[in-house]
Amino acid sequence: MCGIIAIKNHPDAAELVRLGLHNLQHRGEESVGMASSDGLNIKLVKKMGLVGDVITDNDCKELSGNMAIGQVRYSTQGKSIESNMQPLYAKLYGGELAIVHNGHIARASGIREKLEKDGSIFQTTTDTEIILHLMAKSKKDDNWNKLHDSLKLTSGAYSLAILSKDDILIARDKCGIRPLIIGKIGDALIVASESCAIDVLGGEIIRDVEPGEQLSLSVPNVYFLNKKQCLNNICVFEYIYFARPDSIMEGKSIHSVRMRLGKQLAKEQPVNADVCIAVPDSGVASALGYSEVSGVPYVNGILRTHYAGRTFIQPGQILRNRKIRMKLNPVISVVQNKSVVVIDDSIVRGNTSRRVVEMLRIAGAREIHLRVSSPPVKFPCYYGIDTPEEEELIASNCSIDDIREIIKCDSLGYLSYNGMVEAIGLNDCCDACFNGKYLI
Amino acid sequence: MCGIIAIKNHPDAAELVRLGLHNLQHRGEESVGMASSDGLNIKLVKKMGLVGDVITDNDCKELSGNMAIGQVRYSTQGKSIESNMQPLYAKLYGGELAIVHNGHIARASGIREKLEKDGSIFQTTTDTEIILHLMAKSKKDDNWNKLHDSLKLTSGAYSLAILSKDDILIARDKCGIRPLIIGKIGDALIVASESCAIDVLGGEIIRDVEPGEQLSLSVPNVYFLNKKQCLNNICVFEYIYFARPDSIMEGKSIHSVRMRLGKQLAKEQPVNADVCIAVPDSGVASALGYSEVSGVPYVNGILRTHYAGRTFIQPGQILRNRKIRMKLNPVISVVQNKSVVVIDDSIVRGNTSRRVVEMLRIAGAREIHLRVSSPPVKFPCYYGIDTPEEEELIASNCSIDDIREIIKCDSLGYLSYNGMVEAIGLNDCCDACFNGKYLI
Amino acid sequence: MCGIIAIKNHPDAAELVRLGLHNLQHRGEESVGMASSDGLNIKLVKKMGLVGDVITDNDCKELSGNMAIGQVRYSTQGKSIESNMQPLYAKLYGGELAIVHNGHIARASGIREKLEKDGSIFQTTTDTEIILHLMAKSKKDDNWNKLHDSLKLTSGAYSLAILSKDDILIARDKCGIRPLIIGKIGDALIVASESCAIDVLGGEIIRDVEPGEQLSLSVPNVYFLNKKQCLNNICVFEYIYFARPDSIMEGKSIHSVRMRLGKQLAKEQPVNADVCIAVPDSGVASALGYSEVSGVPYVNGILRTHYAGRTFIQPGQILRNRKIRMKLNPVISVVQNKSVVVIDDSIVRGNTSRRVVEMLRIAGAREIHLRVSSPPVKFPCYYGIDTPEEEELIASNCSIDDIREIIKCDSLGYLSYNGMVEAIGLNDCCDACFNGKYLI
Amino acid sequence: MCGIIAIKNHPDAAELVRLGLHNLQHRGEESVGMASSDGLNIKLVKKMGLVGDVITDNDCKELSGNMAIGQVRYSTQGKSIESNMQPLYAKLYGGELAIVHNGHIARASGIREKLEKDGSIFQTTTDTEIILHLMAKSKKDDNWNKLHDSLKLTSGAYSLAILSKDDILIARDKCGIRPLIIGKIGDALIVASESCAIDVLGGEIIRDVEPGEQLSLSVPNVYFLNKKQCLNNICVFEYIYFARPDSIMEGKSIHSVRMRLGKQLAKEQPVNADVCIAVPDSGVASALGYSEVSGVPYVNGILRTHYAGRTFIQPGQILRNRKIRMKLNPVISVVQNKSVVVIDDSIVRGNTSRRVVEMLRIAGAREIHLRVSSPPVKFPCYYGIDTPEEEELIASNCSIDDIREIIKCDSLGYLSYNGMVEAIGLNDCCDACFNGKYLI
Repeated sequence: MCGIIAIKNHPDAAELVRLGLHNLQHRGEESVGMASSDGLNIKLVKKMGLVGDVITDNDCKELSGNMAIGQVRYSTQGKSIESNMQPLYAKLYGGELAIVHNGHIARASGIREKLEKDGSIFQTTTDTEIILHLMAKSKKDDNWNKLHDSLKLTSGAYSLAILSKDDILIARDKCGIRPLIIGKIGDALIVASESCAIDVLGGEIIRDVEPGEQLSLSVPNVYFLNKKQCLNNICVFEYIYFARPDSIMEGKSIHSVRMRLGKQLAKEQPVNADVCIAVPDSGVASALGYSEVSGVPYVNGILRTHYAGRTFIQPGQILRNRKIRMKLNPVISVVQNKSVVVIDDSIVRGNTSRRVVEMLRIAGAREIHLRVSSPPVKFPCYYGIDTPEEEELIASNCSIDDIREIIKCDSLGYLSYNGMVEAIGLNDCCDACFNGKYLI
Repeated sequence: MCGIIAIKNHPDAAELVRLGLHNLQHRGEESVGMASSDGLNIKLVKKMGLVGDVITDNDCKELSGNMAIGQVRYSTQGKSIESNMQPLYAKLYGGELAIVHNGHIARASGIREKLEKDGSIFQTTTDTEIILHLMAKSKKDDNWNKLHDSLKLTSGAYSLAILSKDDILIARDKCGIRPLIIGKIGDALIVASESCAIDVLGGEIIRDVEPGEQLSLSVPNVYFLNKKQCLNNICVFEYIYFARPDSIMEGKSIHSVRMRLGKQLAKEQPVNADVCIAVPDSGVASALGYSEVSGVPYVNGILRTHYAGRTFIQPGQILRNRKIRMKLNPVISVVQNKSVVVIDDSIVRGNTSRRVVEMLRIAGAREIHLRVSSPPVKFPCYYGIDTPEEEELIASNCSIDDIREIIKCDSLGYLSYNGMVEAIGLNDCCDACFNGKYLI
Repeated sequence: MCGIIAIKNHPDAAELVRLGLHNLQHRGEESVGMASSDGLNIKLVKKMGLVGDVITDNDCKELSGNMAIGQVRYSTQGKSIESNMQPLYAKLYGGELAIVHNGHIARASGIREKLEKDGSIFQTTTDTEIILHLMAKSKKDDNWNKLHDSLKLTSGAYSLAILSKDDILIARDKCGIRPLIIGKIGDALIVASESCAIDVLGGEIIRDVEPGEQLSLSVPNVYFLNKKQCLNNICVFEYIYFARPDSIMEGKSIHSVRMRLGKQLAKEQPVNADVCIAVPDSGVASALGYSEVSGVPYVNGILRTHYAGRTFIQPGQILRNRKIRMKLNPVISVVQNKSVVVIDDSIVRGNTSRRVVEMLRIAGAREIHLRVSSPPVKFPCYYGIDTPEEEELIASNCSIDDIREIIKCDSLGYLSYNGMVEAIGLNDCCDACFNGKYLI
Repeated sequence: MCGIIAIKNHPDAAELVRLGLHNLQHRGEESVGMASSDGLNIKLVKKMGLVGDVITDNDCKELSGNMAIGQVRYSTQGKSIESNMQPLYAKLYGGELAIVHNGHIARASGIREKLEKDGSIFQTTTDTEIILHLMAKSKKDDNWNKLHDSLKLTSGAYSLAILSKDDILIARDKCGIRPLIIGKIGDALIVASESCAIDVLGGEIIRDVEPGEQLSLSVPNVYFLNKKQCLNNICVFEYIYFARPDSIMEGKSIHSVRMRLGKQLAKEQPVNADVCIAVPDSGVASALGYSEVSGVPYVNGILRTHYAGRTFIQPGQILRNRKIRMKLNPVISVVQNKSVVVIDDSIVRGNTSRRVVEMLRIAGAREIHLRVSSPPVKFPCYYGIDTPEEEELIASNCSIDDIREIIKCDSLGYLSYNGMVEAIGLNDCCDACFNGKYLI
């Protein structure tokens, strides 16, 4: 997963991109990159680390011009190496380009091999570079048509923004799996992975970019690659876990969707407990919904430290399993001798759940009932979320009762598939991770 | 404010000090320092920044030995400069020492001047160095008695730990203003500013260090400087704002105290609202208490970003007041068109409250009722908390109604002094910031 | 100008490349880069700065494998930016390559434009990348023939080394302008820009690479691109100024050539002086020759500081012209009240000469006679030496008498063109900088 | 050995100190430090590394004020650690001070112990800090008298400069072992270890600071600690090896002294050889003198690389003894098949000489005759030069014939003691390293 943003027609474009990326940081913590154009030249800054740690005021000053793009990256395709940082930059015949990209191109390695045979030299191992080479190979005269040619030859689950000297082009995949939303701030147009990045800039949301749409931020020219074939299948995990609670996606508030997931969970999986607590942060909204319907009082039973930094090594026996305690700490006085219902958003490998239960047990919880506000995750994602292969997905290999044994909680309950669909209120999410029905 | 920790008799002493300091990070984000002894030599590491960012595994490896001390620092006395980082180190006749310190020595500048006249050379502008010079001047033969001599000549609000080649000495001021607690982990003894640092190591709490107590972690020898004169006046702001919610201080859970403050606030300052939200993180427990008593449902209306980093500059008109929105973001769908009651722990200058109200207003809140879970702060603190002088304390200069005007909320209510005292449940807190009755 | 080196079949290949580059440092101080192959993977290290300052032991350890290449770079073509550092790396169909290059490709911008029109994406602004793209475009099956195709399409003044997983290919331009020499050390083959890099490794010189020759360091396979058209026109400035005095080039000792230039200069431009001094370091050999023939005793009158570092700014009036004194310092006791003949290797813009004369004047020299061991430089170099355009070449614009006036010496004498040719003893040097007869 | 400099009454004081230190760099390459005063505050910069590498323009800008001091350090007393970098800084009663120091205080550890017993806290392991503590202990009112008190209690071989808010004090030991010279530049006064640092600033030399003299750079007040006891015994090694050839010390040009040493050596130790070469750089002047008297032509047979950087590790057998070749390279064409006389300034351990001979042998020299322009070094130096203990001094343990065997040269000759004394022309040098007659 990654987060992207593009802004055109604002005198502080780079500064706004930085602020927007800061609010997309949850979509990728590995590296951050920005590019701007002042109408004559494209400038780039790319660094490993968090926006707030590595991008300086001086970086923003040097990225002059009234249009800019940016990305925060969590490596899925392409090894985690510096040369894979985005934006990628290239000089094509006809001018220079910078590109940021979120997602995954289908059958990328085949396309790449064909291009290499033909004499193209790749600089990175990322999917994104394929788009650039296809554009370079296009015999069309302008970037709009070069990009169109390039997208016709690829499919997948992606959103992208391409900066040239005098424009920004935007595209979203035709299945609509990765989110992308348009807003404005005064005369400036903003496109971002999530609405929270538009909101923090004081901007107004216009609409989601439609599946299969290609846009120019200069001319509000809209083109559909092949409108008939376009679907609207946004990734269900954006609602469950990935997006920020204050974002609005396809017209739905993430926070409200998660509250409804929690309410539905309370109906399907009730439990008699003293207190209801959340695994922070993504479980909080569901836990508040669960508490409201069940009447079990919500309390702040697990703290999440704000100081992440590097992962600590664990010296010796005594510190076994301390890693999770560094970020999550139980409030002993709240859970001691209590029966607690713990709300988490999902179970993937089961490791976190196991440690949360152990931590609460050490803190003195009498009973621990785990409730999960999504169905069992049984299938890997091929569209840009870094879920493991089937053999590592606990729900692919174990019954619910086995999972409860492994996690060592007193009871375990998942939300049903139908309950989830109803709570989200969308007909056509991509939910292949729950049912194995892949779109591409 | 600072946080300190000391561990003796554990093979991974430095590693544990690091883990403990990570959990005391909220007490000081400016610098971090550690020292260890292997029985022969004392080694130091001191760096500007957060524990998780700057202390490496290699640092811990080099700090060999089974005893170590550490500090996270937020500069109050002593300018924010690198040379003031702790632990301070000195070679005295009789051996080398490293010292960490939390708090404030009364009449420090007078003592310092006297020492300088007598030929002592100071390396820093910190209070802490005075203790070292007084120890160097003592004609006693051992560190225990040198420290005792030194403490007899000083008073104030402090906790400290002194590492020598073969022992760690501990002391707490005789008014008991700054917290200090003892725990154990197996055969090792731990002393820390807050219990959450003992808890994260899997340790057990033994008891608070008593006011005026001096301890050696080798011999469990206990000495009271002058037991009759000792008081127990822990700082009330530790309960209201400063300590971590999962800490236990003087036998009381911080989280529970804050819940009670919120419950009491709901009784004293009720309001008819659609939702109850907290200014994170310190307002969350009070808001949950307020919600429970008032019946106004608690919702997650303000998000706190986990990515702090540097403060962002704000380009141009459009981004005015964006600084607070970078860390605190409203969940628009939760507050839009709602009447909200917002719980904060305290109002000092009023700037944060004003911005929170403005932010919620922009996000579409219909009515904003601010409730504060402590009385008006009218007097500066001279005991180590960095509150401003009276002229900057909004409640020293304005009536409650004026404050409401400045903050631009629809209504404003503070917790009463008596309500606070009852909710905390301690007779003898230092609450000079509320009533001006200073102890020293 | 740059310096390159390649080593095959030595277990410490990267370490030897580092040592060799250290001895080629005078050919480029801007950046240094190395690549190695262990038969499976190519690894790179590229850094701005000097070999001894920036390449660590650890870098050498990571560059495992028994073949390696390296370059020290002084930017001529291609701006002085980090992305232009060499070796360039690329993944072609058929495998990965790293390339180092010294010199200049003729008509580079035209070839580049044609490649870009055809869809090639360039990452740098260097000449070198053209070779890579031409290889990528070649339909030949192996690197040997891809390189051959690529060289057929280019001409210029260059030497290059290309590392693949299992071989190193070498090529030298067909005019023979840039030097390149082969040596061996045990079973290992070494190719370097100058013999001093082979010598420092304890290696033996085999022979110069011939103009137009393409070599593989695996198979001692030799191929001449088009033997009939090949010339042997090594750059005359290598002998006069650029190469290190302990190198041997086309069978001639640089030190001996410079001695002979000085002897010839003494015959052509005698002067009655008390002492003969050199502008270090390149003037020393000529000055010793001048002294021997003229009988004017050679003394060490100008010291060159070993500590270069950054250029110092010059505060205020008093320090005007101190910059040159930082590196060159007169030995006052040697020149005071003396008539001195100063030997320099060449005059390009005239700035250095003017400052040297001023410095000696301040130091108390009574008379200053400047003698130059090469003819007037009247034409710019297009083959990789960074000489200025004609309007900045002092001898293009001024008579010798005018130059003397500008430099403010008491007399000035240049070596004659014929005298230079005779002293060097080569028929076919490239001496376009003296006579404007360009080869390509 | 170290180099110090102080400048008062110049608007660019820090900038000039930097330039001066650059020219004293040969006296210490480990660390560099500077301090300035603007009349109100003292500011410091201290860094590990060379002046030109680590002191930035910005450092100089921050060191505002019209007086400044500086030091380049080569650790003799005091371990090579960052905390020992100079200037040392201290706040004494009566104001702040910064001190730089070159040399060695006699019986330092005893004085230090006494001070520590009395309550002084030392921050470093350097001699220099003793002066500061003695000043802090003095009951005198002003720095002039505090320093006087302090110097009365110490003896040794040192030069020092002390910066206070409004003055610079200077002192030189009463045996006159370490050099110190005064100059001026306009209205500004300069004091430096060597005249070359005054010269590079365009300054004029006034005179050497006299042994036992204490100076204030404000009031040209001169005080002799105890004039009768003062001697003039400058270190003979300054002339032979340590000082820069363009410096003038006690009225004598270092370059001329070395020329004379070479001439005397030619008379005492003649040899029939083809060429005369020097071990650079300190052997060059002697070699020119040797050549002049002997008639053996001087040639440039050994190059010294200007790129020092870190010492390279030596991989494997093949590179044994390459370390010296990295800095010193033979010019093969000059020495091959020749009988050479090699002039070096001294032999201490014999390692360098052995490697130089081996290097020349590999380069093809037919006969190698080593001539040394000083007598055998038989006794260690206790006055600040880092010579080894007797057991490592080759001339303490071996006859001249044995040394020749070890070094593997064809003949070996030293200058006689009387020859040296005569060539230098001073009656009272400290030459304990040659005769064991220590002064203190």
